[in-house]
Amino acid sequence: MAQQERAIRTRQAILEAAGKVFDESGYEAATIAHILACAKVTRGALYFHFSSKEDLARGVLDEAVTTEGVSPQPFKLQELVDTSLLLAYRVQREPLLRASIRLSVDQRARAMFGTRWPDWITVTAALVQDAKDQGETLPHVVPEEVARLMVGAWTGVQLISEAMPEPPELADEISLLYQLMMPNIAVPGVLARLDMAPDRPLRLMSSAEDADVANGDAAT
Amino acid sequence: MAQQERAIRTRQAILEAAGKVFDESGYEAATIAHILACAKVTRGALYFHFSSKEDLARGVLDEAVTTEGVSPQPFKLQELVDTSLLLAYRVQREPLLRASIRLSVDQRARAMFGTRWPDWITVTAALVQDAKDQGETLPHVVPEEVARLMVGAWTGVQLISEAMPEPPELADEISLLYQLMMPNIAVPGVLARLDMAPDRPLRLMSSAEDADVANGDAAT
Repeated sequence: MAQQERAIRTRQAILEAAGKVFDESGYEAATIAHILACAKVTRGALYFHFSSKEDLARGVLDEAVTTEGVSPQPFKLQELVDTSLLLAYRVQREPLLRASIRLSVDQRARAMFGTRWPDWITVTAALVQDAKDQGETLPHVVPEEVARLMVGAWTGVQLISEAMPEPPELADEISLLYQLMMPNIAVPGVLARLDMAPDRPLRLMSSAEDADVANGDAAT
Repeated sequence: MAQQERAIRTRQAILEAAGKVFDESGYEAATIAHILACAKVTRGALYFHFSSKEDLARGVLDEAVTTEGVSPQPFKLQELVDTSLLLAYRVQREPLLRASIRLSVDQRARAMFGTRWPDWITVTAALVQDAKDQGETLPHVVPEEVARLMVGAWTGVQLISEAMPEPPELADEISLLYQLMMPNIAVPGVLARLDMAPDRPLRLMSSAEDADVANGDAAT
């Protein structure tokens, strides 16, 4: 069991190193040697988990669609906001997530590995559909359409923010994006109760930590 | 004068060839030889206009911010919609415009040449500010913020549309994007009068052609 846990940690360390290198250098320029140096693992350990640079890129992309830290909410639109804001917060702090975006944006890497945008659209459309079924949305809302636009808008706002000479905090921008779009998605009674503030991710994470402490997870 | 006109046409043919090659191959893989073959001009003609591949990329990016085909409208928000929809229509048909996006999205090219997103944000913010001054916008609208979000959203919607197995008509997607955002930007009386239909670009172009014919431009 301890051995299995060690293997999982090594795999994760390699993925994070690959994310860092892909994020900094792009797919083409990234080398296994550089990833090895970053991960501080042996060549044998790396090849035990990943057979090639291609395989590493696929592993990085598999980490891209995450709703980690999002807990069920009475309003499904709140879960959608939470997912987007948490991702905005994390992407500026986690090279592995940033690398998955970079691999999607890069036309060559995209041709080889595809992107995770369709998965994000599926996740988003399911949340908007649930919201619609619960009566949270205005009558004209088409979940699949809103999902495509949301994922596109999120991606583009991230891209142009990152390219600015002094990149803003992405959660601030995504908060503004939701404040712009949500009044035409949510019914007023739900809209008035949604928390779209830029510090929402911080509060979500600290309440998740509190829950961990209460569950005794912090002691393990 | 005829010589000057010929020089302008040659320069444009080179830029369009460069756009095509950058769009297809990306900046790194693009070669002057390939651009020459595409442009069907001599090496001397190319180097008369552009000193290097870098210089060609700068020339391509200089063509990116265009409001060609947009004519003054009573509502400034209509001009904003027209600018976005026309660009959506053209970008799927003009490799030169697509190349300027690709150069902005590519992290290496971006580090060398910057992007035209700040210029687009400036153009957009000026239109929203004019709209605000004319009383077209809701009271909470901050032109600079809306401009950043609009340019980001447009860019991302273009990016994920292009990556789809069967890319939709971009003007359809941008029309949906405006239908989603505009109700939280325009006052209702203006909103009801805005033309955000996906075939707006076609109608704008055909009315521009009619005007050319009426002015006798078609005969020159």
